[in-house]
Amino acid sequence: MTSIKTLIDVNRDRILEELFELIRIPSVSAKEENKPDMLQAARLIKTFLMKAGADKAELFPTAGNPVVYGEKLISEKLPTVLVYGHYDVQPAEPFELWETPPFEPVIRDGKIWGRGADDDKGQLFMHIKAFELMNNTGALPCNVKFMIEGEEETGSASLEKFCRDNKKMLSADVILISDTTMISADTPSITSGLRGLSYLQAELTGPSRDLHSGLYGGAVVNPCNILCQMIASLKDADNHITIPGFYNDVIECSSDEREEMAKRPYDREKFMKSVGVTALDGEKGYSDTERIGIRPTLDINGIWGGFTGEVTKTILPSKAYAKISMRLVPDQNAEKIAKLFEDHFLSIAPAGVKVKVEYLHGGEAYVSPLDTPEYQAASSAIQESFGIRPIPVRSGGSIPIVATFEKVLGIKSILMGFGLESDAIHSPNENYPLFNFFKGIETIPLYYKYYARLKG
Amino acid sequence: MTSIKTLIDVNRDRILEELFELIRIPSVSAKEENKPDMLQAARLIKTFLMKAGADKAELFPTAGNPVVYGEKLISEKLPTVLVYGHYDVQPAEPFELWETPPFEPVIRDGKIWGRGADDDKGQLFMHIKAFELMNNTGALPCNVKFMIEGEEETGSASLEKFCRDNKKMLSADVILISDTTMISADTPSITSGLRGLSYLQAELTGPSRDLHSGLYGGAVVNPCNILCQMIASLKDADNHITIPGFYNDVIECSSDEREEMAKRPYDREKFMKSVGVTALDGEKGYSDTERIGIRPTLDINGIWGGFTGEVTKTILPSKAYAKISMRLVPDQNAEKIAKLFEDHFLSIAPAGVKVKVEYLHGGEAYVSPLDTPEYQAASSAIQESFGIRPIPVRSGGSIPIVATFEKVLGIKSILMGFGLESDAIHSPNENYPLFNFFKGIETIPLYYKYYARLKG
Repeated sequence: MTSIKTLIDVNRDRILEELFELIRIPSVSAKEENKPDMLQAARLIKTFLMKAGADKAELFPTAGNPVVYGEKLISEKLPTVLVYGHYDVQPAEPFELWETPPFEPVIRDGKIWGRGADDDKGQLFMHIKAFELMNNTGALPCNVKFMIEGEEETGSASLEKFCRDNKKMLSADVILISDTTMISADTPSITSGLRGLSYLQAELTGPSRDLHSGLYGGAVVNPCNILCQMIASLKDADNHITIPGFYNDVIECSSDEREEMAKRPYDREKFMKSVGVTALDGEKGYSDTERIGIRPTLDINGIWGGFTGEVTKTILPSKAYAKISMRLVPDQNAEKIAKLFEDHFLSIAPAGVKVKVEYLHGGEAYVSPLDTPEYQAASSAIQESFGIRPIPVRSGGSIPIVATFEKVLGIKSILMGFGLESDAIHSPNENYPLFNFFKGIETIPLYYKYYARLKG
Repeated sequence: MTSIKTLIDVNRDRILEELFELIRIPSVSAKEENKPDMLQAARLIKTFLMKAGADKAELFPTAGNPVVYGEKLISEKLPTVLVYGHYDVQPAEPFELWETPPFEPVIRDGKIWGRGADDDKGQLFMHIKAFELMNNTGALPCNVKFMIEGEEETGSASLEKFCRDNKKMLSADVILISDTTMISADTPSITSGLRGLSYLQAELTGPSRDLHSGLYGGAVVNPCNILCQMIASLKDADNHITIPGFYNDVIECSSDEREEMAKRPYDREKFMKSVGVTALDGEKGYSDTERIGIRPTLDINGIWGGFTGEVTKTILPSKAYAKISMRLVPDQNAEKIAKLFEDHFLSIAPAGVKVKVEYLHGGEAYVSPLDTPEYQAASSAIQESFGIRPIPVRSGGSIPIVATFEKVLGIKSILMGFGLESDAIHSPNENYPLFNFFKGIETIPLYYKYYARLKG
């Protein structure tokens, strides 16, 4: 693959400039105001695919943001790789914490800085460029399809329907995704599992308007206090989740599996330092890695109510809100968990407040078997480019659509991600090391090579 | 007092137009951006005082907003009434809930609508107009001083110093304040007690930045969840506050007093309807009226943390905040309670979060004896103008400065308020019935008359 490496070197500046063009588009799917940017980003992806050598590429309108589909089909005898990625990004707030503006990408300290630098514009772009370079060297050993959506960060609401409606077009042997991390360049890893997600919003209403906290406080129930009480009651002293039935469908990992996982290198001090805390805590009876990898969670993603401005306002608020999400493990079902949550949350609401729970989105957990050509091709590709055999890791994150792909299209996904935990995805100062970016472009053609060989 | 009544009728439109001019100034003391409006409002008050017949009126600069002082001294032999009020108002947010803009006062359904229509621009203005009309009829029977501040809604931070620095200038026999409610025109009442207040802000910090809730959730402590747990633990199942020592200085009302208070007319259904709830709850062992009037409380005035925008963002937040205030009763001390809160709140914080507690402002509770000329003058004035003897009521609200007046100036305050609970002070659609406004202007001169007589 020397020619690919050489091509990367020769085209380095152009490749980065193209990626920057994509990052500069603030394609924040969570914000209505960025609607025009979504279309612009989708169109740019299409242009990139065509330039890279796709036979065709087009935008498929959906109820939300368009899906970009592109393909290059060489031969029915060759296996087909379907690349999935997303051109939408997380909101960049709080802007003031960014060292350089989120949508003005720059190179600093050997890293690309900007919203989407890793998640997922940077990682997705590696696939487009690897595809381009394989085409340029005449070394494309598989049929390739691209399915790039614009709603991943808000729950991929339109993608299941898109898959159902286009099953034939999307037929493939494997779905290849770079939207995850590896441990490090010294300890490369492949994500062999993802958690599911069930994301809800709760709204509590006490009095019909904000009241004077002196003239009413003490007798009128305060929805902010009550929301705190209700949320607090969702975990017991051991940090077990108290929603009845919550753990019913959880497949407990065997002690063998847990022993195997415990071998993964993990430096607690370093981990704490990386997130700026001096202590960790979580569900009793599980290690940090297990708490993230194989156990479900319940986290408040946002909470608000009453007066949140400067100084003071002595009100008894009318409303209180929380965004609450639960990470799920096999075989928990996102909608079933949402229903359990809603039923329980309504049942614990005291008189004097009205509670509304809305299910915003979710998806199931996913576990990849390790003894398949699909996984082994990724393992071999990384071994060749990094010089070290990667280890499989169960990630705490969620790409709910991965379970949907299996359900609707019947295709397994391989999560060959090149991000690092320090990339600060979903946070201010998101970044992506140049090393990982270019190593990804180098590794992806190796995946095609090994996959074609193993399937051949 | 026919002449006063006649003068009110003759000058009705002009009086309202002058009040509207004052309401149009958005003198929100909680907002830095309204700083110029504070000065404008203070200057207008000064102008009104001079026009009303004050010998002098001037602005006293403070570390915050200026205090307007004015006086008319007739004779050393006559008692001196010091009128206190405030020209600052609460923030008007949420603006979208106002039927007409908060700073564009209008008359509708027999009421004045606008921020400050009651609290306290409307009520304060009654005193200026009563003073003017007494001057015009030559019927001013007391010396009069005005002390009108601009920081009441944010805790009267500068007023204690102002009082200390100007003790001689402020010497008086009684402080007369209209910044409270009466039950109704059919059941007039005088506020004989106020609760104290201790207002704090808590800040919790978990990880040093917002984290991906999947990649970290389960092992890294979530400050929003913890804030909920900590707040929830501040009350037990009976809604007693759990802060150690919190009730130590509370003077329990005798059963005689409680029986007397229970005679106050109270319609639970009507009360619930007025605030839009179907149930009430509070501290076990006390009636609704007692929960508001004679018992301390702990209310969340605002809470926020994490992602509060549209749709979803899967973060484990770095920060969580709450504005928490406690209404106090005799003999609780605001700063002592703040310290108890802080010590307790820090002590219950689990490892993995850092907690900061800031005391924003506060003041002591106040109880007025009923057998004094100061109180009896108010009682007689209202009896003459409303035709019904008013009943004394312990209010749940706080005017912390009232306790300070007694401490620093050695002068008792009389809370002769003409507002109604339905005036929605501190809420959207604040209003003040024209009946109450003009009845106030009519009653105040009667207070002067009776007070001069009782002291004479």
